[in-house]
Amino acid sequence: MSDLISLALPHIAKLHAYTPGLQPTEPGWVKLNTNECPYGPSPRAAEAIHRELADEGELLRLYPNPKSTPLRQLVAKIHGLREENVLIGNGSDDVLNLLVRVFGGPAAATGFTLPSYSLYPVLVAIQDGATTVIEFDRSMKLPVEKIAASGARAFFLTSPNAPTGVAFSNAELSAVLDKFPGVLVIDEAYAPFARENAVPLLARYPNLVITRTLSKAHALAGLRVGYALASAGIIELLDRVRDSYNVNRLSQAAAFAALGDTGYYDAIIGKIISTRDYWVTDWASRFGWFIYPTQTNFIFAEPKNARGETGPAVAKSLYEFLLSQKILVRAFPSHALTASFLRISVGNDDEMFTVNTAIEAWLAK
Amino acid sequence: MSDLISLALPHIAKLHAYTPGLQPTEPGWVKLNTNECPYGPSPRAAEAIHRELADEGELLRLYPNPKSTPLRQLVAKIHGLREENVLIGNGSDDVLNLLVRVFGGPAAATGFTLPSYSLYPVLVAIQDGATTVIEFDRSMKLPVEKIAASGARAFFLTSPNAPTGVAFSNAELSAVLDKFPGVLVIDEAYAPFARENAVPLLARYPNLVITRTLSKAHALAGLRVGYALASAGIIELLDRVRDSYNVNRLSQAAAFAALGDTGYYDAIIGKIISTRDYWVTDWASRFGWFIYPTQTNFIFAEPKNARGETGPAVAKSLYEFLLSQKILVRAFPSHALTASFLRISVGNDDEMFTVNTAIEAWLAK
Repeated sequence: MSDLISLALPHIAKLHAYTPGLQPTEPGWVKLNTNECPYGPSPRAAEAIHRELADEGELLRLYPNPKSTPLRQLVAKIHGLREENVLIGNGSDDVLNLLVRVFGGPAAATGFTLPSYSLYPVLVAIQDGATTVIEFDRSMKLPVEKIAASGARAFFLTSPNAPTGVAFSNAELSAVLDKFPGVLVIDEAYAPFARENAVPLLARYPNLVITRTLSKAHALAGLRVGYALASAGIIELLDRVRDSYNVNRLSQAAAFAALGDTGYYDAIIGKIISTRDYWVTDWASRFGWFIYPTQTNFIFAEPKNARGETGPAVAKSLYEFLLSQKILVRAFPSHALTASFLRISVGNDDEMFTVNTAIEAWLAK
Repeated sequence: MSDLISLALPHIAKLHAYTPGLQPTEPGWVKLNTNECPYGPSPRAAEAIHRELADEGELLRLYPNPKSTPLRQLVAKIHGLREENVLIGNGSDDVLNLLVRVFGGPAAATGFTLPSYSLYPVLVAIQDGATTVIEFDRSMKLPVEKIAASGARAFFLTSPNAPTGVAFSNAELSAVLDKFPGVLVIDEAYAPFARENAVPLLARYPNLVITRTLSKAHALAGLRVGYALASAGIIELLDRVRDSYNVNRLSQAAAFAALGDTGYYDAIIGKIISTRDYWVTDWASRFGWFIYPTQTNFIFAEPKNARGETGPAVAKSLYEFLLSQKILVRAFPSHALTASFLRISVGNDDEMFTVNTAIEAWLAK
């Protein structure tokens, strides 16, 4: 065993893998820990898959479209872009991985903020890449000057941010892009829940990459589809590293059908936003909790216990109480700016009442 | 554009992407170029997907099992191994990519033979890795001593070989493993069509990795499922680099169901082998073609024209004639040992009669 480890590259031998949120396999959990959509996807997704499975799945014997071409064309149309500005990934994690492999290495630092999506440093570590980390302060205001001067070859920015939920305006992002000479990756996993997105900036900045996922607003986490929007030159570089058949036949067909059903998604996204805003207001006023203004499908809240205390121990206490009630949320104990908070995905009404009742029980303990 | 290229890592800026076989989108082609299965998958695959799509695809909103655990357990059982000896990939190309990223780099050479699967050098080039190339000679006999002395950190061997179809015996593979101190990856994409496979060697060699795919014998190329079999230490290293949700929900469910239907696959594999052996014998005797003994689902043949000539120009002439008849096969013009040959996937009876008739027409021209 130790001999095998010594055969691995030294940076892999000491690597810590990314830990995804818990995915319980038994039923009965209220699962508000991985920002999945509380509602199912457009019924057109399943219909498209059933169609693709005609004749007992005969088509499955054939490789999928290597470039996901029809899906690239549809995504381009949705965003007012061209096919050469789009790359489809096996989830947006696939796209993020490609970006790190094209731009990041020991001599080309990859930048990101803390806190942000905790996958970025793992992807960079897998490539033995150098990193440049820019820390937020408690205001969570975008450190424009620091990012612009970071010297990173590529900088990854989650907007709206995870896990805080705070969105950055196009004015702020433009201020970064006006000065930053590297590739700015704006990870817009949660953009469908936000008031603004950075797509209009693509026309002005050839060094801008936007990543999107169908796992959150489109309720297709189980299918693994995400995409990148960027100038043709960047997309062409990513395609060189992309696996030839990275997105399977059924995912391509279902994503294509789902993205066409804007009426359905407008409705569920609207419902999630109104649920979110209701509970943010309610918990802030009734419990006196600090909650960052969120433009996502989750609530990043600093719980206050019955004695009015906040802090890592309080957050941990509530996390564990909720766990004991079979309610899963997410804790981020490893950073001072996040350790006092819990991230609660916006569920359906039943789930939100359940978590609210559990919080009240915790307060009454 | 040129500025963007200069932001990419130098080895990416000069990279040539892997070119997959043509996937025509319009109907009417006889497609014998990518070794897909001429028969559909087990009907249980589509049934499992239909089940997973209950309630209009409601389950698709949830992330898949991150480790594909039930599928790992089933694959382990099939091969008489344990769950910790199995990793599931988004196609075996995903697994090959992980292996290169764990073991290959500028200071850790990756070895492979020429000819073999042309993806290996691309995966290594993406990592800016050093390579050690061992050339076959026309006999296609395994160069045991050269591989053992190659100095590669990991050596990739396709067995049965692609594109030649020639299989290496476990006696030959053991002779390599008895001496080779690195990781030996045996890419067994075509093993279900062979008389022997290397799985029994896993118990003796902790530095052996076997990769498999469901894209060929299992007729599930459209779903992207492959796997690695290895000692627990190697699997654990690969899991560090693997994307957390690399295999989607439907692919996991369908692969699980398909792998349980051994009766179905025994039948279609038997049919493919008998079709293959019929035409190998027929073309060798009637046309006087040299064909390597194949233990795969393809035929690697050196066409002889009506004047009895062989060579790259003859192979090209037949390739182009078949293309004009809407018959796709694969040519490998870039290597002296393969340029005179064509690789023809074994199709169903109709397809094989069609290609045979076309060859006769080419001979009669």
